[in-house]
Amino acid sequence: MTSTTRPTGAPAERGGATIARIAELAGVSTATVSKVVNGRSEVAPETRALVEGVIREHGYRRQKKQNRAALVELVLHELEGAYAMEVIKGVERVAGEHELALVLTELHGRHTPGRTWIDGVLTRKPAGVITVFSAPTSAQREQLASRGIPFVLVDPTSDPTHEYPSVGTSNWDGGLSATRHLLDLGHRRIAAITGPSAALSSRARLDGYRAALDNAGVPVDPALIRTGDFNIVDGLAHGRDLLRLDEPPTAIFAFNDAQAYGVYQAAHEAGLRIPHDLSVVGFDDLPPAQWAIPALTTVHQPLREMAAAATSIIVTLAQGDPLPQNRIMLTTELVIRASTAAPRS
Amino acid sequence: MTSTTRPTGAPAERGGATIARIAELAGVSTATVSKVVNGRSEVAPETRALVEGVIREHGYRRQKKQNRAALVELVLHELEGAYAMEVIKGVERVAGEHELALVLTELHGRHTPGRTWIDGVLTRKPAGVITVFSAPTSAQREQLASRGIPFVLVDPTSDPTHEYPSVGTSNWDGGLSATRHLLDLGHRRIAAITGPSAALSSRARLDGYRAALDNAGVPVDPALIRTGDFNIVDGLAHGRDLLRLDEPPTAIFAFNDAQAYGVYQAAHEAGLRIPHDLSVVGFDDLPPAQWAIPALTTVHQPLREMAAAATSIIVTLAQGDPLPQNRIMLTTELVIRASTAAPRS
Repeated sequence: MTSTTRPTGAPAERGGATIARIAELAGVSTATVSKVVNGRSEVAPETRALVEGVIREHGYRRQKKQNRAALVELVLHELEGAYAMEVIKGVERVAGEHELALVLTELHGRHTPGRTWIDGVLTRKPAGVITVFSAPTSAQREQLASRGIPFVLVDPTSDPTHEYPSVGTSNWDGGLSATRHLLDLGHRRIAAITGPSAALSSRARLDGYRAALDNAGVPVDPALIRTGDFNIVDGLAHGRDLLRLDEPPTAIFAFNDAQAYGVYQAAHEAGLRIPHDLSVVGFDDLPPAQWAIPALTTVHQPLREMAAAATSIIVTLAQGDPLPQNRIMLTTELVIRASTAAPRS
Repeated sequence: MTSTTRPTGAPAERGGATIARIAELAGVSTATVSKVVNGRSEVAPETRALVEGVIREHGYRRQKKQNRAALVELVLHELEGAYAMEVIKGVERVAGEHELALVLTELHGRHTPGRTWIDGVLTRKPAGVITVFSAPTSAQREQLASRGIPFVLVDPTSDPTHEYPSVGTSNWDGGLSATRHLLDLGHRRIAAITGPSAALSSRARLDGYRAALDNAGVPVDPALIRTGDFNIVDGLAHGRDLLRLDEPPTAIFAFNDAQAYGVYQAAHEAGLRIPHDLSVVGFDDLPPAQWAIPALTTVHQPLREMAAAATSIIVTLAQGDPLPQNRIMLTTELVIRASTAAPRS
């Protein structure tokens, strides 16, 4: 990140070199600079790198108001289940209000977009870019910033610094209230199935879980904490393991709803009834949670609203308006349904 | 539909009037015709209608090879649940292989796109348009055809004529095999919860259901056929009703998976165990079906493959290649899991 690019991803109207000056500095034609700036592919990689280097160093001043396409780009690390659909619906709502069409990219499980993606974005010249559970590389961020294409991170996996606009949720509070609910019901052996250790959102939930136990004077038992991958399959595997312990938990806090359904399966296999024999809490409160049998007690994460807020940020920045704040936090809330009860005495 | 537009939505390279000729015929400037052709909004509605009328009558010959954006447009009537996600994944896969970005539009439950949508599409100039469970109006079809933008229907609700390319699935066969499976298990009182009566896909499943009963010499009981709306809520409502009959069904065939989960709820409320007290079959086989408790016996509909096939059609037409056939049918297949068993004797 050099000083000439805009840290907020806001348009770089002031300062920066013109295409003619960049061409001069790089020793190439203006046509070549124009191709690089517009993400066209017919430029040799070395030439492209050379031009990008000059742009990084000197900035890029657009000739006049650029034609911005009425598009907003949404990047999801995977198109799986209700989580992705909630995000899409949130973006779609605000984008629709502003007559922005939604361009959707899936990263197929990766957490940074590839070369094809950034080339496409520079060609399409969208109003802005929203990445969910993923983020552009720093080189890609610079390319976006130099073209005045704003971007926003939703639920960032990396450190939520305030350098770029981002939207998060109160994961720690959610972890605390889920665990406190189980403690209040009388549970003392409360297991946790976390998300991947790289996900800060999971770490925050785990810290909330620990804080609730500490606060209640209940020792944290490392045997009851399992690292999962936010999928139903690992919820099932860890659920089986936990229920086979000599001293099994009386409650399991799964760090997303999918894992909770895996625990439902494990309980079903073991002939245990929820909540009579085992209490289960999830995290996300995606639409299927209310239809689980029994209906799932879970921490509501306002995914749709988070995605909508990210889209509003794009609209604001694309209009050239300042953001009141770079980081928006929406709150989680425990929704108590039928999967939790007092432990059998 | 006039004779000058291409029924397949294939490019209209040959014939048709130039922009200059259209301007002359309509008595407007070439700039105005150009704006209408490119979907720009700053044209008075009457003028636009006038120009569109001339284009309908005389066709529109593009000056030279148009810049086609590397986009494919996907239109879904609603972004709900696993159905929409399967479709998105299927389109995304083939679009990604051809470096086409995916533009997603939701119709919020409507079955024809509105004015904003067609204006946006004409501005964006995509490689093609895919509509799912919905279709452009005939005026919109003409606008697309006159600009050489191909479109494909997936699972059309209207009559699957072969006038436009479309992708369907063997709904009748699916209805037949689901019902035959229940008959083979020994069921005689088999209820059906259908989709909306306007949906031809639902009608085909119902006809398959009737054919299986007729074939087995089991009379069709109208009291056991309920018209639903492909949602969990109507599955629950109809399930409750059916289970309260003096002579309740021993098996329920729900015309989609969501309705089957509604029946699961109704059975749970009534204290009935699936499949011991009641057999349930769904339709779609979306990913959650294997995780239902008990795992759902359901008719697999290859939604992802259908969406992929539709995208391949767009790629073929956008390249100017002919289609081997205008209508593609993929097959359904019954997947037997744990929600069906012989009736209690």
